[in-house]
Amino acid sequence: MKAMNVDVKSLLNQGVELTDRALEELLPSVDTVPASIHGAMRHSVFAGGKRLRPVLAMQAGITIAGTLPPGIARLGAAIEMLHTYSLIHDDLPALDNDDLRRGKPTCHKAFGEAIAILAGDALQTRAFEVLAGLDAPPAATVQIIGLIANAVGTVDGMIGGQVLDIESEHLKPTPELVNAIHRAKTGALIRVSVVAGGVFAGATPNDVARLTLFGSKAGLAFQIVDDVLDLTVDSAQLGKTAGKDEATEKATWPAVFGIEQSRADAARLIDEAFAALDAYGSRADGLKAVARYLVERKN
Amino acid sequence: MKAMNVDVKSLLNQGVELTDRALEELLPSVDTVPASIHGAMRHSVFAGGKRLRPVLAMQAGITIAGTLPPGIARLGAAIEMLHTYSLIHDDLPALDNDDLRRGKPTCHKAFGEAIAILAGDALQTRAFEVLAGLDAPPAATVQIIGLIANAVGTVDGMIGGQVLDIESEHLKPTPELVNAIHRAKTGALIRVSVVAGGVFAGATPNDVARLTLFGSKAGLAFQIVDDVLDLTVDSAQLGKTAGKDEATEKATWPAVFGIEQSRADAARLIDEAFAALDAYGSRADGLKAVARYLVERKN
Repeated sequence: MKAMNVDVKSLLNQGVELTDRALEELLPSVDTVPASIHGAMRHSVFAGGKRLRPVLAMQAGITIAGTLPPGIARLGAAIEMLHTYSLIHDDLPALDNDDLRRGKPTCHKAFGEAIAILAGDALQTRAFEVLAGLDAPPAATVQIIGLIANAVGTVDGMIGGQVLDIESEHLKPTPELVNAIHRAKTGALIRVSVVAGGVFAGATPNDVARLTLFGSKAGLAFQIVDDVLDLTVDSAQLGKTAGKDEATEKATWPAVFGIEQSRADAARLIDEAFAALDAYGSRADGLKAVARYLVERKN
Repeated sequence: MKAMNVDVKSLLNQGVELTDRALEELLPSVDTVPASIHGAMRHSVFAGGKRLRPVLAMQAGITIAGTLPPGIARLGAAIEMLHTYSLIHDDLPALDNDDLRRGKPTCHKAFGEAIAILAGDALQTRAFEVLAGLDAPPAATVQIIGLIANAVGTVDGMIGGQVLDIESEHLKPTPELVNAIHRAKTGALIRVSVVAGGVFAGATPNDVARLTLFGSKAGLAFQIVDDVLDLTVDSAQLGKTAGKDEATEKATWPAVFGIEQSRADAARLIDEAFAALDAYGSRADGLKAVARYLVERKN
């Protein structure tokens, strides 16, 4: 991966700032009746996320349009609401039963299980409401909603991946299984963040095909690196319980391929992802820099 | 309420048939991987619902367009998915903790709590995906998605009503509280079923205003009658546990106003709802007949 003249830290910081501002504006205040659920939604949304999916959407928008498309932060905020809803439900006692997320009490620990379930539900609903209000041509808005709902759904989407993950605990993981879980559980939302950012910026069908290829490769690389970090970094640096995948016998990439092969696979996937963006020249530098960060990060 | 020449039973049966056919086509089969969640989604969706919200959407479509708009069954199916998702989550141990729904095991009883949570999540997602694929002009589709997401949300919508309902258990119910809960928890989705059906059929802003008024009144009347039935009809006839509202000290209309006043309020609300449809003459006969059924039903 060759060096590019992009300051990825400032791209990430700008993405966090724009996304947080949009989320602040789009989520009901904690004083809005009924107050408990709005407190719970904000608790989890503002728990310190890196906003990687919104940043990918924004950089994909720049790749297509040449500059940051006005209003794209709302698309990023909606995607972040969907990501946060999935974390809230994933942490519930009936699922992963986690008490901490990014060093803070999980939603059900702070607000009780009933409110946590409904807060997750409500973040999904609000995400689609925000998408319906995007400042884009109606046909693009409809396309974005359909793509995102598909990526969050049960067939090769986020929820389907969660179910596969639950069903496969304590089974011996195969390459096919871990690939299917990763592509669906985390890969689909990362891929659609890139594609939706492009569509918002006016992507043609050819652009959509390229961004889909890029997003698929980058999304899988991201999850492989996540698996490796879970095994190799301690909990303090990771901000969540390290080694948990191994303890719960989750189907992970290193469990199937080993750590060294996993690192090599992630690097190869990123190279392949970059190749999908050749047509865009330097306009894709920001998107590439963020993707490279995804696989070189330490937490 | 004067007699009309409409056979409401055949309208209802036709609505069930069209909705079930659309749901059958739109939900992944039980063989689709991962199978467990698709089984859970279908278990709850095909548990014998009366499809009242889809029927209201269809009759509102006829009120605006003069005939049943082609493709409106998919809109009804999406609304029914949202209704079913809310029932699955409402029945969970952390919320109402119900074992039976329409005489069958609730989703978490049949499939476990993790899959039930995700099945509810997935029905919401699939609903928005189906809405994004409606055969309507993109601007109408975007309007429908925004209206429905708003009606399902936390601010005067379905989830907000559920939270108010949970928070107010064991509190003495006031007229303001029970009104707020009913308008949000069940009223909002019934109202938006009517409005979305109209928008799908090409409603103007004036039409939307009339249908909103009609839907608000009919939705509140429906829930008042639901409360009265819970108190006055036995469990076998009701198909669910009768008297549960009183046992759990829920905020209900009869708890505040008494049974006789509740019945009178429901009848008055339906008369007011009908008045909102005067402009449509006999084209609204089907919609009125269904609304009258909502308040005259015995289960």
